[in-house]
Amino acid sequence: MPEIQRLDSRYTTFWDELDRLLAWESVADHDVRAIVDEILAAVRSEGDAALLRYTARFDRLTVAQPSELEVPAARLQAALDGLPAAQRDALQTAAGRIRRYAERQRLQDWQIEDPDGTVLGQRVTPLDSVGLYVPGGKAAYPSSVLMNAIPAKVAGVRLLVMVVPAPGGELNELVLAAAAVAGVDRVFTIGGAQAVAALAHGTATIPAVDKIVGPGNIYVAAAKREVFGTVGIDMIAGPSEILVVCDGQTDPDWIAADLFSQAEHDEQAQAILVSPDSAFLDRVQQAMERLLEEMPRAEIIRTSLDRRGALIRVHDLDEAVRVANHIAPEHLELSVAEPQALLDAGLRHAGAIFMGRYTSEAVGDYCAGPNHVLPTSRTARFSSPLGVYDFQKRSSIIACSPEGAAALARTASVLARGEGLVAHARSAEMRGE
Amino acid sequence: MPEIQRLDSRYTTFWDELDRLLAWESVADHDVRAIVDEILAAVRSEGDAALLRYTARFDRLTVAQPSELEVPAARLQAALDGLPAAQRDALQTAAGRIRRYAERQRLQDWQIEDPDGTVLGQRVTPLDSVGLYVPGGKAAYPSSVLMNAIPAKVAGVRLLVMVVPAPGGELNELVLAAAAVAGVDRVFTIGGAQAVAALAHGTATIPAVDKIVGPGNIYVAAAKREVFGTVGIDMIAGPSEILVVCDGQTDPDWIAADLFSQAEHDEQAQAILVSPDSAFLDRVQQAMERLLEEMPRAEIIRTSLDRRGALIRVHDLDEAVRVANHIAPEHLELSVAEPQALLDAGLRHAGAIFMGRYTSEAVGDYCAGPNHVLPTSRTARFSSPLGVYDFQKRSSIIACSPEGAAALARTASVLARGEGLVAHARSAEMRGE
Repeated sequence: MPEIQRLDSRYTTFWDELDRLLAWESVADHDVRAIVDEILAAVRSEGDAALLRYTARFDRLTVAQPSELEVPAARLQAALDGLPAAQRDALQTAAGRIRRYAERQRLQDWQIEDPDGTVLGQRVTPLDSVGLYVPGGKAAYPSSVLMNAIPAKVAGVRLLVMVVPAPGGELNELVLAAAAVAGVDRVFTIGGAQAVAALAHGTATIPAVDKIVGPGNIYVAAAKREVFGTVGIDMIAGPSEILVVCDGQTDPDWIAADLFSQAEHDEQAQAILVSPDSAFLDRVQQAMERLLEEMPRAEIIRTSLDRRGALIRVHDLDEAVRVANHIAPEHLELSVAEPQALLDAGLRHAGAIFMGRYTSEAVGDYCAGPNHVLPTSRTARFSSPLGVYDFQKRSSIIACSPEGAAALARTASVLARGEGLVAHARSAEMRGE
Repeated sequence: MPEIQRLDSRYTTFWDELDRLLAWESVADHDVRAIVDEILAAVRSEGDAALLRYTARFDRLTVAQPSELEVPAARLQAALDGLPAAQRDALQTAAGRIRRYAERQRLQDWQIEDPDGTVLGQRVTPLDSVGLYVPGGKAAYPSSVLMNAIPAKVAGVRLLVMVVPAPGGELNELVLAAAAVAGVDRVFTIGGAQAVAALAHGTATIPAVDKIVGPGNIYVAAAKREVFGTVGIDMIAGPSEILVVCDGQTDPDWIAADLFSQAEHDEQAQAILVSPDSAFLDRVQQAMERLLEEMPRAEIIRTSLDRRGALIRVHDLDEAVRVANHIAPEHLELSVAEPQALLDAGLRHAGAIFMGRYTSEAVGDYCAGPNHVLPTSRTARFSSPLGVYDFQKRSSIIACSPEGAAALARTASVLARGEGLVAHARSAEMRGE
């Protein structure tokens, strides 16, 4: 039975207790940073030689030639062809829905014109190349390949390079099949900080890319933080989280399963239920006790609920909205009769919002269409789900007519001289003379 | 006379020389990182006390009460009212154009619906609060206040907090006036890593914000990199750059002034001209020699052109496009008869593109409308101008109908079980039973 924590907003200590519950520090310690710095420097200066050395040391994978690190396209297709039909169909159904949602997200060019003929606009182009980090071992998730790769290809990225460590040479067939379905261009069996370094700086074997996305362990996260600026990166992800807001009228088994679906990810995952109905909190706790026995990952579920889970009683749904905004959860389930009313009441910080009793987070994780790469650790206050827009960039367009140039020069000249930048002023003025 | 470097794409060493010209490392060294770590930890644990201590030490500004660090709104308005009419009008004209462009950029909600009634969508909301770092001293630019603050207010940010160091108590009237014009909500006279720490973690006096934007010195940049994750940040900016592509038919004085307008920013700024016409490169060099004498910042211009400037002769405009894509410049002037033809020929990496002979970078810096906060140091390969979208975030929306939940559960269940996540499978399946 999970010893899940209970909080109640009636107590004056509530908000402090909530902050303690949410506290989680992603910062890599000094030792991690020193190791990562060494790996980055070695791969940058020695290239493939360092990459092979670290791959042998950390992944117990020794190859004679760097080219053996590449997984041929035929091997990906063979993995897909070798799957049971149900898995192949499910991957393709999910990919189709993810692709359709992504297509709707594509940014577009636009222009506006001044009466004097000056044109201003925004031009959108895809990134040339992207690296996708996929963890090996126990966290090897084919759904993550689909969610990261498909938006990049929909954006128009021409070179999508996947890296996945193969500890002891072992690869996950579903991950390779997902790469085939998603249209990944090249796959290399490397991982860790050395893979991030290779993608950021390039080696003779690994092409340098413009941006690196995808989840990884603390070394991968620290390496991504270091190479940020040389290349783009996505957010540094923390543990996965769910916040369920329920009015007490949903089947308690459904809510228990939703909390489990978060808690089973790992011991750091966070599952929180908020309800104004304390009897309902009791019923969900009973359901959890009963259902836990059916769960193959019961130990992980128990640990994460013990450590980081909570059942929170609030005064009413308006207070639930305030709690949700404070938590800014990665996943927010609104298991209520009128979910739209909570959005209208000011609910505004969440990575993905699952509306109504029939919408489980799990369908969003796999196949509803929206991305499952979402801001964690309260970062939904300022960041967004991974999307096509993360693989596109904008360029501003300014095209002055001669009349427009003269008019703008008058304003620019005053401001430039106010800042003491006379060359700026002259450059603008000359067009108006 | 600037000793500006000449490159020629006919030589086999050209691309290597170009890379050496572009090389610039933003990475803070170990000493900077250690100082910044100490400041961040002190402000986080001691709050206002540490903030006052560092402000006294680094900015020679001692106040009796932390509340004296705030600049009252009336002081901002007085600064605006006290300006000469021409400056006030120019600020307001620029602000109006920046605002109009920003309004066009606002992201919008959208929804799509499946035949079975399941709705998928994207919801857009503004960030609650943003911190704007404005450098004090020689780089105190009112235009930078407008460019950072206006998109945030257009996005709907309710609390926009500006910090600006006041060395020895000195403040720039134009900067305060620009804050009034842009609608900044609160202003504090703090700077350095201690200001970044205060904005990221909050103190009794300084409100914690969700994102920190704006340029700063190496300590500010290192502090922003450290707090990234706790709050959002914009890009870490490198030195400013311009690349001018010219067919040889523009007045050489105009091009010389354009190169100067970049070079006068600071000694690290980079100004590069590319043309297939080597006689034109000579004429621009002669124009620079002649015009340099009129420039108050001639010493800075000379140093930056000596160190980092270049005149590059290419075979034709197609090769100029390849050079431009490799450089991915912050500012790209297409001073040619048909600028659109270069875009159509595959030109795709640049922060802002200035189209045609009449469009100087300087009008873009101040008042054309598009933002002057742009990706530097080749980061235009993967990032975009600052915009309204940087102050908005998206939440994915999933609302399953009962039929939709059942259909999606079949796919989710197969994939979840393939990943060994049975709680995910059960959570989805229960809705379909």
